[in-house]
Amino acid sequence: MRNVQQKLSVARGERPAELLFKNAQVVNVLSGEIHKTHVAVDDGRIVGFGDYKARKTINLRGAYLAPSLIDGHFHVESSMLTAPEFARAVVPHGTGAAVIDPHEYANVLGLDGIRYVLESTKNLPVDFFVMLPSCVPATPLETAGARITADDLKLMIGDDRVAGVAELMNFPGVFLGIKSELAKIEAGKGKCIDGHAPGLRGKNLNAYALAGVRSDHESVTVEEAREKLRLGMHILLREGSTERNLQHLLPLLNAHNAQNCSFATDDKLAGDLVNEGHIDHAVRVAIKGGVAPITALQIATINTARHYRLQNLGAIAPRFWADFVVFDDLKNFRVRQTYKKGVLVAEDGKYLARSPARVPLPRSTMNLRYRPEDIRVKAATGKTRVIEIIPDQIVTREVQVTPRIEAREVVADVERDILKMVVIERHRATGNVGVGFVRGFKLKHGAIGSTVAHDAHNVVVVGTNDTDILRVIEELEKLQGGQIAVANGKIKAALGLPVAGLVSDRPLAEVMQRIDALNAAAQELGCDLAAPFMTLSFLSLSPIPALKLTDQGLIDATKLRKTTLFVR
Amino acid sequence: MRNVQQKLSVARGERPAELLFKNAQVVNVLSGEIHKTHVAVDDGRIVGFGDYKARKTINLRGAYLAPSLIDGHFHVESSMLTAPEFARAVVPHGTGAAVIDPHEYANVLGLDGIRYVLESTKNLPVDFFVMLPSCVPATPLETAGARITADDLKLMIGDDRVAGVAELMNFPGVFLGIKSELAKIEAGKGKCIDGHAPGLRGKNLNAYALAGVRSDHESVTVEEAREKLRLGMHILLREGSTERNLQHLLPLLNAHNAQNCSFATDDKLAGDLVNEGHIDHAVRVAIKGGVAPITALQIATINTARHYRLQNLGAIAPRFWADFVVFDDLKNFRVRQTYKKGVLVAEDGKYLARSPARVPLPRSTMNLRYRPEDIRVKAATGKTRVIEIIPDQIVTREVQVTPRIEAREVVADVERDILKMVVIERHRATGNVGVGFVRGFKLKHGAIGSTVAHDAHNVVVVGTNDTDILRVIEELEKLQGGQIAVANGKIKAALGLPVAGLVSDRPLAEVMQRIDALNAAAQELGCDLAAPFMTLSFLSLSPIPALKLTDQGLIDATKLRKTTLFVR
Repeated sequence: MRNVQQKLSVARGERPAELLFKNAQVVNVLSGEIHKTHVAVDDGRIVGFGDYKARKTINLRGAYLAPSLIDGHFHVESSMLTAPEFARAVVPHGTGAAVIDPHEYANVLGLDGIRYVLESTKNLPVDFFVMLPSCVPATPLETAGARITADDLKLMIGDDRVAGVAELMNFPGVFLGIKSELAKIEAGKGKCIDGHAPGLRGKNLNAYALAGVRSDHESVTVEEAREKLRLGMHILLREGSTERNLQHLLPLLNAHNAQNCSFATDDKLAGDLVNEGHIDHAVRVAIKGGVAPITALQIATINTARHYRLQNLGAIAPRFWADFVVFDDLKNFRVRQTYKKGVLVAEDGKYLARSPARVPLPRSTMNLRYRPEDIRVKAATGKTRVIEIIPDQIVTREVQVTPRIEAREVVADVERDILKMVVIERHRATGNVGVGFVRGFKLKHGAIGSTVAHDAHNVVVVGTNDTDILRVIEELEKLQGGQIAVANGKIKAALGLPVAGLVSDRPLAEVMQRIDALNAAAQELGCDLAAPFMTLSFLSLSPIPALKLTDQGLIDATKLRKTTLFVR
Repeated sequence: MRNVQQKLSVARGERPAELLFKNAQVVNVLSGEIHKTHVAVDDGRIVGFGDYKARKTINLRGAYLAPSLIDGHFHVESSMLTAPEFARAVVPHGTGAAVIDPHEYANVLGLDGIRYVLESTKNLPVDFFVMLPSCVPATPLETAGARITADDLKLMIGDDRVAGVAELMNFPGVFLGIKSELAKIEAGKGKCIDGHAPGLRGKNLNAYALAGVRSDHESVTVEEAREKLRLGMHILLREGSTERNLQHLLPLLNAHNAQNCSFATDDKLAGDLVNEGHIDHAVRVAIKGGVAPITALQIATINTARHYRLQNLGAIAPRFWADFVVFDDLKNFRVRQTYKKGVLVAEDGKYLARSPARVPLPRSTMNLRYRPEDIRVKAATGKTRVIEIIPDQIVTREVQVTPRIEAREVVADVERDILKMVVIERHRATGNVGVGFVRGFKLKHGAIGSTVAHDAHNVVVVGTNDTDILRVIEELEKLQGGQIAVANGKIKAALGLPVAGLVSDRPLAEVMQRIDALNAAAQELGCDLAAPFMTLSFLSLSPIPALKLTDQGLIDATKLRKTTLFVR
């Protein structure tokens, strides 16, 4: 601790504190109660409770003072914001720390991506702790920008801000005892090991826990979560943009187990963060669902800090950082002020922190090699497999249709909503191009495309005609990654994502505006999906059933193997 | 984890488990509930819940299965038993692990004492974790066998079974920021830092917590404990032989803070451990006091394991050691069976584990240098200060009396119950001899003596005449340390404590028998104190008010300085 003698003498009351928060109702997540006191702060740390002399006094007049909130599992890339702009979105909502898994950065940039994340998340009013991505690439059925092994994890695990190994999505690999996966757990020894095991139950779940996995954020039913909790897994109650499990999981909590639960968002869009909130939203949902406010705030703070061993975070007590939120109503939890190390960083929804020095962007990641004819599909006899979207889900269905043929080529059929989908490998200029067809977008004109495409994040485009599809690809290359809507050769809306093709380098407000414009443009082209670019981004995710398209072609994602466009 | 592939295949149900505990009501301290299931064990670890095939099945027929109990703070020397004999006493009561502070061993033998403890606590059905003694010697006003600095702590802190730095009893040194004390905290960085701050409140307590102290076991009132809990200190609810704070502290617990509490005994005599119990006794007291059984068992298991980071202990779930207790009644918690790593080690009060190979005893610690005339007191004018015992307390009172003089010497005065007390330094043959007088023992003949004498553990004797006092000293030297009662030149009862002059090398039953004989002998000599040898052992403890006698002479323990026998 810096200036320890000074702080001790302040604590003893011998010299004035820098700051005194008077007349606070402290939400004490350690003693499990709310008690009135004054809180003295010096040099960014809490030094004591009681009546202290101070150079500056902030009279809270009976308002509540709680520790700043912590997200237990978040992919910061999902907001398409840089860390400083993410902070701008969430600090007014009371967020003080986040445990992040830079899985997408790592898929594109490997260890360089993780290093960029560590560097670009410094000196912000949110403390970031990194879980090292454990499943890069997600499968061999798509071409990612990197491969991360247990040896790679060992290179970075010692970093002070690395809290452990991120979600072990290859859960069969773990419970089957595949050496490469067990080695990743071993690499994280002494730190946290996160799990990801949707629907895993029974004996295989026993084995998954036995192997050393200590958390899960994928439970969607109380029964599933309870089984995992019984096996010693810390349960991350997820409430993100699309996955909204919190309400369903609240019955899991009893008076004796809340300490083993945290809140997490996993993925949340910039607009949702700003408008709905971040972990504060989860606190509101929990309290409205009948959880005691003190318990909800423990789940939002100390439980996460303890599980991930975030030092001096998550509570209000001497030695902890003076990371506070001020609010007025336990039943309708709305953060009025956020403090970071004793500094007011947000008030009444307004972000007050200064931006840190800009961190250099990572290298370009748009390395395409393709010819226009690569996206053509020669006609053949028989039906073709088409990916059918199920709205609001990341699973798809396989349908088989008679293709529309023009000039000996299979082409999009707008009438039947069968659009062409193209995936182009963008990391290593392999020349891999996957072409298929998809139903559900309902575009009547043009094409939309994105370089956010889980998990390999290649270029993915859906369109009504080849000209617009090619235009999308060209423009995404110019933008160095992004999302775009094009019709009749014209750009309707675009968001550049030059940071790994995943994240914008623009301010929060501009990003939100451009996302709105993209959605509006897609709608104008005929699409009625709630989040067309998010839907697009999951169509390459080969571990998720049933039919997907990657740069390597059509994937039978149930059997985890390549398949053919034409049904034979 | 040893044999990980084998255990994973057992967990998956592919090969039979070694053991299956069928039809258990598992006290699941992780999910905070009791649920029926079967528990599969292989190679000493729990591998899964569910219906498994096994080479051996133990049908619990609905009995409760809880994790083995853990003592959060214990001085194993206080039982005067070696670790194997302590295990014999507590394993039938369900103890599976103990966090011990070998403070007395360290005062006598320094780091060698700690090394002996680490060595002699291996391969037992109780797992021992060591907190490194931080206050050796306790004060400069008595001569201990060793001095331990922060640098010494650094030599041993890395040991896997060292859980941190033990109780920082020099609490003013800590809150005042004395460098040597802060250096001890720094030496324990990354591990646990235990506190000891009886009655410390307010700003100085804030400073004590700020400095990094993370626990306390000295609270005697709810208010004191609550203040410490609010400041982030883990509260050890103490229930030992003499300090019985648990009942008073139960109102501290609410539905939101029990995770920050553990049970501890601090000091408990062999007989009390056998007859009353160990942590199982604390569980009974808590449940009778209205604490939910699941909470009481969490306090007795997982809370302590988590606070002290005892890996794979304190819960029943895959990867945890198969350390169980079986019992039948939640309201009257009586352990019927104790298992260690899946092996039955106690049943119906009977200890079933095999004794490990004997560990060599540490070196002799009885290095006396004295002449018979050293214990004589020349007469002078005026009154003398006399230590007055307050029954059942470790504090004393100073009284001033007119001495009885015979042949120009101050001598014991049995009529007025003013007995002679002698302390002889025993570690380094310094020749230091302290002589004083004490009221409260009521011996009519003879003398009693002990080499257990907190915290320096010099030879301490109280007697009615010099001949018997000298005999006591001679006999203690022959025994290489011990406790003894002598009258008219004859030994009435004796217990040899050749292990550092603190601990017997004899079996549990013999130690208990000899302790009983010693107490009976003291009673026969006229003493009506409940625990005369314990009272004797605290009369040299110079940090505790008001008047004490060490090898350096009479100590004004209120002002922490030497004083004179004659009042000037």
